[in-house]
Amino acid sequence: MNDKKPNNIEDLKVAVIGGGVIGAGWMARFSQNGIGVLVYDPAPDAEQKAAQVLENAGHAWSRLSPDTDVNKGRVRFVDSIAAAVEEADLIVEAVPEEPALKKKIYAEVEQTVSAEAIIASSTSGILPSTLQEDMVHPARLLVAHPFNPVYLLPLVELVGGKKTAADVIAKAREIYTAIGMRPLHIKKEIEAFVADRLMEAVWRESLWLVKDGIATTEEIDDAIRFGFGLRWAQMGLFETFRLAGGEAGMRHFMAQFGPCLQWPWTKLTDVPEFTDELVELISSQSDTQSGHHTFRELERIRDDNLVAILQALKANSWGAGETLADYEKSRIETAKISGHDH
Amino acid sequence: MNDKKPNNIEDLKVAVIGGGVIGAGWMARFSQNGIGVLVYDPAPDAEQKAAQVLENAGHAWSRLSPDTDVNKGRVRFVDSIAAAVEEADLIVEAVPEEPALKKKIYAEVEQTVSAEAIIASSTSGILPSTLQEDMVHPARLLVAHPFNPVYLLPLVELVGGKKTAADVIAKAREIYTAIGMRPLHIKKEIEAFVADRLMEAVWRESLWLVKDGIATTEEIDDAIRFGFGLRWAQMGLFETFRLAGGEAGMRHFMAQFGPCLQWPWTKLTDVPEFTDELVELISSQSDTQSGHHTFRELERIRDDNLVAILQALKANSWGAGETLADYEKSRIETAKISGHDH
Repeated sequence: MNDKKPNNIEDLKVAVIGGGVIGAGWMARFSQNGIGVLVYDPAPDAEQKAAQVLENAGHAWSRLSPDTDVNKGRVRFVDSIAAAVEEADLIVEAVPEEPALKKKIYAEVEQTVSAEAIIASSTSGILPSTLQEDMVHPARLLVAHPFNPVYLLPLVELVGGKKTAADVIAKAREIYTAIGMRPLHIKKEIEAFVADRLMEAVWRESLWLVKDGIATTEEIDDAIRFGFGLRWAQMGLFETFRLAGGEAGMRHFMAQFGPCLQWPWTKLTDVPEFTDELVELISSQSDTQSGHHTFRELERIRDDNLVAILQALKANSWGAGETLADYEKSRIETAKISGHDH
Repeated sequence: MNDKKPNNIEDLKVAVIGGGVIGAGWMARFSQNGIGVLVYDPAPDAEQKAAQVLENAGHAWSRLSPDTDVNKGRVRFVDSIAAAVEEADLIVEAVPEEPALKKKIYAEVEQTVSAEAIIASSTSGILPSTLQEDMVHPARLLVAHPFNPVYLLPLVELVGGKKTAADVIAKAREIYTAIGMRPLHIKKEIEAFVADRLMEAVWRESLWLVKDGIATTEEIDDAIRFGFGLRWAQMGLFETFRLAGGEAGMRHFMAQFGPCLQWPWTKLTDVPEFTDELVELISSQSDTQSGHHTFRELERIRDDNLVAILQALKANSWGAGETLADYEKSRIETAKISGHDH
């Protein structure tokens, strides 16, 4: 490891606070890029659970990017926040969605780290301005919101709060790009940011459909994955609709379909009550749908599919496949410069 | 063509009324399966526009399923509804979303066809019970709602109205399966059915995000295609969330994230006003995002990506890829039985 140069991404020192599904996904993403990670999570089974995520990630990456799947960074669990963050350049917070808990952790982190260290919250929806309000150096905090599985999906939403420094966003963008991700800077902070707002909209509508007995969870999933889900792996809503408008494009599409927004079928826009009965209905339908696979099997199926889709898009130099190709090229360049001879 | 047996899918006689993007997609889907199609569309440029869709479909299928891309059915435009439907077993209606127009066409169709002919509306959201209310033989009508591009996406939502016969649904299921589609029977009719309700939910939320200046159309599309869109090409919302809950499964996921539904980030559930300004804002953002590609280029890119994704999923025997594999197997069997020697 003595062949590293300054500013090599592998010199980055990362701490992860919270070792659940998202925290472990981050460990895997950094480790796969040769970056060492120190982890703090007080749960007794955290290390064992994270090891399974790291194993899944290793399996996926060995097939996704075999040419660059080298030189893994070490992941080590430590006994305190201080021990994890002491020398860290980047502190990734991935603890439950409780503002008070997150703020308490930031206070503890700030007692130990240098003023330059960046703190990146993985929150799915809490405003960075809220998270940073009690901090000594609030300029260092941003939200870097990833998507499960973090070691495969490229998207990371970067959101600054009122006091976040512009160069913290810029530095974060550089780091996440270097580890194969696609940073999307959300310029106005808003609860749930962008991607989760869209998913929540689908979630709300789906809860109504299940509650009212229109469709089961399996039927809703099939309505997604045999139809528009295939489109959305490569073009989003607007580009897809642009094509649906025919050669006349988006204005025509909106003239043709826009008024449907006022039709009665848009009325179910409130939120169904979250009763025990609804939880049970959905959980039992989900068991019927997916219960014949173990959790590990389903994870492996998902990852194998994502690897195949990413490689398919890479062959077409498009979207998430283009991100992957760019990343692999830059990894190979870096390896050459720093003289790795795996 | 003398080698056909009764009940061979290629013996099906299909009429398509309306030759827009969806109608032409249907022509392509049937033609690729060796089924002849008679088309009625009064627009002078309909035949020329449909020819381009047929060309795209031919390009896509020659790479999607080269082994079964044989024996195309003839697509022929005729001068009247009567001439199109006279001998048809299946009449596919794909005209604009105006109930009165659709009803008028059904009345004209019923003057010509036998009582056994099935009428399948491509409507995205009008209730079949409404469509069939003035029909002589309402039992023959169902909704068969496809997704663009119809020649590649397997999903077709089948929805019966109050008077639709069960065996019409069963027969339709058989036909659409035979042409490589994945029929999803929606058992309770509801405006916009299932898939479009989910898409409309995303559309509403997206309109707010653009209107409020949170994100551009391109940023929203990127939030989809670099993140959850990749997941939804292979597992839907519920199966994905089941995995996000970790080993504890769906009940745990709902306990953990369900209450977020009551958080302030779910407040934007009403519909933004559909003003000229909003149309212009979205159209011009869409031009910035996609305007450097021509419509034809974008179509080709989309189709190439969908072909690659479908083949990737086929290699993994999963979802839409499994549908494709089953279809190809049955096509090859049929070809053997009927003695085709391509």
